[in-house]
Amino acid sequence: MRVLGVDPGLTRCGVGVVEGVAGRPLTMLGVGVVRTPADADLGHRLVAVEQGLEQWLDEHRPEYVAVERVFSQHNVRTVMGTAQASAVAILCASRRGIPVALHTPSEVKAAVTGSGRADKAQVGAMVTRLLRLDAPPKPADAADALALAICHIWRAPAQNRLQQAVARQASGTPQAPRATARPHASKGRTT
Amino acid sequence: MRVLGVDPGLTRCGVGVVEGVAGRPLTMLGVGVVRTPADADLGHRLVAVEQGLEQWLDEHRPEYVAVERVFSQHNVRTVMGTAQASAVAILCASRRGIPVALHTPSEVKAAVTGSGRADKAQVGAMVTRLLRLDAPPKPADAADALALAICHIWRAPAQNRLQQAVARQASGTPQAPRATARPHASKGRTT
Repeated sequence: MRVLGVDPGLTRCGVGVVEGVAGRPLTMLGVGVVRTPADADLGHRLVAVEQGLEQWLDEHRPEYVAVERVFSQHNVRTVMGTAQASAVAILCASRRGIPVALHTPSEVKAAVTGSGRADKAQVGAMVTRLLRLDAPPKPADAADALALAICHIWRAPAQNRLQQAVARQASGTPQAPRATARPHASKGRTT
Repeated sequence: MRVLGVDPGLTRCGVGVVEGVAGRPLTMLGVGVVRTPADADLGHRLVAVEQGLEQWLDEHRPEYVAVERVFSQHNVRTVMGTAQASAVAILCASRRGIPVALHTPSEVKAAVTGSGRADKAQVGAMVTRLLRLDAPPKPADAADALALAICHIWRAPAQNRLQQAVARQASGTPQAPRATARPHASKGRTT
């Protein structure tokens, strides 16, 4: 399965595409950051995030989009921008009928490092190792986006199939998406 | 000027269109609510909000969109949905090059009732009187959307002209929008 991970943000929105199945080596297909200028008004920033994410969706055609779940108990200054950028990511994917999964930061950390309280450096190191990269992706938002995609591939094959069924029903698309047509390991790591 | 007010929400997103200028009687052109089912997943709800708002923008062609500013210190359960619905509203307007203004609930209450701490009934009563309606619009989200539009018309003719200039520059549209081409009262109520 091919997953676009999105670490939402207005200033830096991390994006990373990972392909693979649970229990097999994973492949990174792309990583980057959609940036918007901090001095632009909110509307233009949201439009820029939308345009940037649409390009990633066009180029990589992911079967799933995994977005970090935003909590409102975070820093009150940044949480609204994060929530609004995440809304744009969820909207862009849902408009195309791509199932969206939300994972909490601690679920992502636990999936890739074994600890829900791992720091940024540990997450970056594990992402580097799991995707066989030469160095940790920079900035941290890009590495976090890859970690989200990895988390999604590993966490829930059954959950994914359920979401796809719901998405198909809602969008009226009868054909089976590629991920369920391919056989893949059902005993994947589930943390 | 014609303003679409949006009281953002996932379950009920209030929308109201008001036309007029500060210091003159105002006219309501439309009022309603975009609803999404509480049991649908977030992605489908955001897509439904987008589709609903696009219809309102298509039908009424507002020159401004006024959206309630969301604060993160509100109820933590609902604030994320409100922030995400507001992001969709801001995105829809900005994509069309329509300037977006954010007004806080107390600015809106102060504009239409004279008190920033007015209750829902007072706001509904003043909206009814100012727009010469037979009864307060129901539900309260619809009345709040009209109040936002009224607030925007009354608050800031100068601010509006500035925003339009910025929007024109950002979108590369050289022609003057209709609102600035028409003469209108500059001594409007500014609370």
